[in-house]
Amino acid sequence: MKLTLKEIPLDSPFALINEQNFPKAITYPCQLRISFDSTYFPVQAYLTSKYVDKGEIGLSESVIKRYGLLEGTEVDVQTRRTFDSVAHRLIIDKVKGNMLNKEDMDTITKGFMNAEISPSHSSAFLLSQHFTEFSLDEIEAMARSFADSGKIHDFSAPVFDKHSIGGVPGNKITLLIVPILAAAGLLIPKTSTYAITSASGTADTMSVLAPVELNADEVFDLVKKTKGCIVSGRDMGIAPVVDKIITEAAFPLGIDPESLFLAGILAKKLAMGVDFMCLDIPVGTGTKVDNEEDGRTLARLFVSLASRLGIKAEAGLTYANVPVGHSIGPALEAAEALDALAGKGPTSLVEKSCELAGIIFELAGMTGRGLGKPFAADILHSGKALKKMREIIEGQGGDPKISSDEIREKLVGKPVLSYQAPGDGWPHTWNNYALKEIARAAGAPGDRLAGIQILSKKESVRKGEEVFRVYASSDSALDEVRGLIAKLRPVIVESVLLERVA
Amino acid sequence: MKLTLKEIPLDSPFALINEQNFPKAITYPCQLRISFDSTYFPVQAYLTSKYVDKGEIGLSESVIKRYGLLEGTEVDVQTRRTFDSVAHRLIIDKVKGNMLNKEDMDTITKGFMNAEISPSHSSAFLLSQHFTEFSLDEIEAMARSFADSGKIHDFSAPVFDKHSIGGVPGNKITLLIVPILAAAGLLIPKTSTYAITSASGTADTMSVLAPVELNADEVFDLVKKTKGCIVSGRDMGIAPVVDKIITEAAFPLGIDPESLFLAGILAKKLAMGVDFMCLDIPVGTGTKVDNEEDGRTLARLFVSLASRLGIKAEAGLTYANVPVGHSIGPALEAAEALDALAGKGPTSLVEKSCELAGIIFELAGMTGRGLGKPFAADILHSGKALKKMREIIEGQGGDPKISSDEIREKLVGKPVLSYQAPGDGWPHTWNNYALKEIARAAGAPGDRLAGIQILSKKESVRKGEEVFRVYASSDSALDEVRGLIAKLRPVIVESVLLERVA
Repeated sequence: MKLTLKEIPLDSPFALINEQNFPKAITYPCQLRISFDSTYFPVQAYLTSKYVDKGEIGLSESVIKRYGLLEGTEVDVQTRRTFDSVAHRLIIDKVKGNMLNKEDMDTITKGFMNAEISPSHSSAFLLSQHFTEFSLDEIEAMARSFADSGKIHDFSAPVFDKHSIGGVPGNKITLLIVPILAAAGLLIPKTSTYAITSASGTADTMSVLAPVELNADEVFDLVKKTKGCIVSGRDMGIAPVVDKIITEAAFPLGIDPESLFLAGILAKKLAMGVDFMCLDIPVGTGTKVDNEEDGRTLARLFVSLASRLGIKAEAGLTYANVPVGHSIGPALEAAEALDALAGKGPTSLVEKSCELAGIIFELAGMTGRGLGKPFAADILHSGKALKKMREIIEGQGGDPKISSDEIREKLVGKPVLSYQAPGDGWPHTWNNYALKEIARAAGAPGDRLAGIQILSKKESVRKGEEVFRVYASSDSALDEVRGLIAKLRPVIVESVLLERVA
Repeated sequence: MKLTLKEIPLDSPFALINEQNFPKAITYPCQLRISFDSTYFPVQAYLTSKYVDKGEIGLSESVIKRYGLLEGTEVDVQTRRTFDSVAHRLIIDKVKGNMLNKEDMDTITKGFMNAEISPSHSSAFLLSQHFTEFSLDEIEAMARSFADSGKIHDFSAPVFDKHSIGGVPGNKITLLIVPILAAAGLLIPKTSTYAITSASGTADTMSVLAPVELNADEVFDLVKKTKGCIVSGRDMGIAPVVDKIITEAAFPLGIDPESLFLAGILAKKLAMGVDFMCLDIPVGTGTKVDNEEDGRTLARLFVSLASRLGIKAEAGLTYANVPVGHSIGPALEAAEALDALAGKGPTSLVEKSCELAGIIFELAGMTGRGLGKPFAADILHSGKALKKMREIIEGQGGDPKISSDEIREKLVGKPVLSYQAPGDGWPHTWNNYALKEIARAAGAPGDRLAGIQILSKKESVRKGEEVFRVYASSDSALDEVRGLIAKLRPVIVESVLLERVA
């Protein structure tokens, strides 16, 4: 609303506003934003029935001076009706130790969807989860509320899913697991995200092979034919509040509380109507979970929550001290996935994919316990998974004949850095964090062709032999890569004799 | 900076910005505000080296549509360089369990002073104090940093002080204690705040008798003559960061962590060069501390922190189940204070003032232990305190001859509500919270003349006899008062027989 500026005799950073300017009473300071010309500033406002009239906003001399304003100027004032909201009160009650039920969570969810939660309160919601442990009831309620923030899809048949909590570079297993399962007749309408902090999200990698931006109708039509797909799902309205909360609260603080993280995953599964799923928990230095004990606790919590939500889940702790496979970055990972589907993949990638697909076959009752993995491996080795993947690529609008060679040809001419062994030995320690940062500095995932190709992951090398190669977007990106390699030491190549002490 | 809008193919609430637009690299999402015409919106921005060019800002179609923008429009983009700041990192480290030292606190203080702390992070700073206990070292460091955010005043003589943590209505004791101490020759340049949530802060009450907006030079000149003053101190640059943190972080969330609260008080005392002080901790239902055990813990913590900062302090837990004296609201309280200085004050007010002034006389070594209170009472009863108060009023620019009658005459003609006893009995329970809310609804402290006069605080009353009277700013304020009285029950008047059960 347009209000006229009035100087008030208070040396305060806040504004005074006449209560008649508001349709309903606001008893708490409310957050306003005042704009004029091409600038603006935020200010806390208190209501008054006297000091300023209807149509006026009062600011102290110091505030007026600071922003170069003049008394009598008309400014635009906006409020988000935040500080008196029920959602805010619920968040503060939670901070003070109350429990939140489904109805409370619905109110908070609605607050986020309507952009009525102030940054202070979204931070408080996040930190209440960081500092205190949410109960299973609360996480369940949160997951259900989050799911209800968008569309709930019904595929009218059992839906299967695989989800990785992420953190390990090169984890392109979805591109193997989906076609393996779909080839066996299981329905797996897989939605995957773009990378946020990693070098390539599954949506980034898949986008090298086929469009991933399918809407709900297109996904429904597609999986009727193919049983599987790998899409971004961003147009499917899947628990949209989760991304809002992550963007508004978790990113700014760099904190990702377990309860939010679990509720977020499960909300999206509920929205997709998932009935059976396997959770991949990579365990390793530089990933999200660095020891098995923590991984086991997280796994049990997840399985138990999933069960409350009607999802039969099993989790797999997976070895993640090194990248999965030999490639990091969208194009390199897509090429490697195609190779693996054609029977030419690196052992770590094939093994992991078959283990997790196997768990899902067992959950589905298609094989007995312990027989899922060989069943998955059979499908992979028979070529059925590759055939299915080509169907999926075609169904999503890609070229079904795309080959890994064709993808790698596109890399020709890109600025390249070759990392050579400084001495005889073998690459005995890979640094996941460093590899991710280097791949991102090289330009991944924005530049689909940027990334890292590992040439010798475990095998012994001679001095000067190439250990890995970085494809970068530009020479300046390559300079940055060079700096990071020196600083972060992505790999340690050493002989058995580590050091001589005289 | 001015940037041109570009539509980006990402269904995201965030913006993309070319890293060349920034003088230094920002690796984390940073908060931007985009303004155009007379509106604006906040957005999280990620850096890119490719998707948008220098001079452009990328927004998704949905964001562009939501704000009615057009590709190619020039918008104004501002960043506060927040998310990569060291202060932010320190706050997050604290959230994750680190300890903060003086240097860290200085960085955070500087961040607040430079408006570089995002609302999310100010909330996190506050909540780290709510959810975890800060060590004495940390609170000490915080108090010193806060003090260093402004001017440190040196009065070149021992400085005495009294501070009430607030919460009890009618607490006009400063208007008695300051002249009592000053009359005995102690230096007490008292700064007091305006009300924030109460019906009258000491600065509000004193402003009825004299101007309180003195700058540092004026205060120094004045106390050379009078030894005492009662000013707002807002132009004295006393630990200004404290008010910033309270306004930006504590108010929006309605949370006031003990560590912040203690550091805030002590920082202001350090800034005023206080050597000896007495802390008034009102203990009672509806105040900040509702039981003696909590009061004692807080008192010990305060005294111990003060000692680390070179301040000799003693705390007094004071009875606060009922208001202090018989009046609530600036003018009514000022009149009552004058009466009390003239020997006609209510016992509760006179007793409390002499007790606390007595503690300070004992701290100053002017009397032996237990002899401070009668010494203070002698000064009060001798009329020396009233004489001193008139000197102070004159020194601050007020009329030294002002009388309580003169003040009360101004109330004539104001809308009044008289609360009468519903039956024979006595007012056995007063509700501090209700009284405060009623006085505020009546218009206090904004309307200096609005407030509550209690006519029968403890004495037995007959049905229909007046128990208290409310002076309001307007008839509509009086209507609100009426509603609150019905809802909050400020007083319970009952006979010995509470209820008959047949």
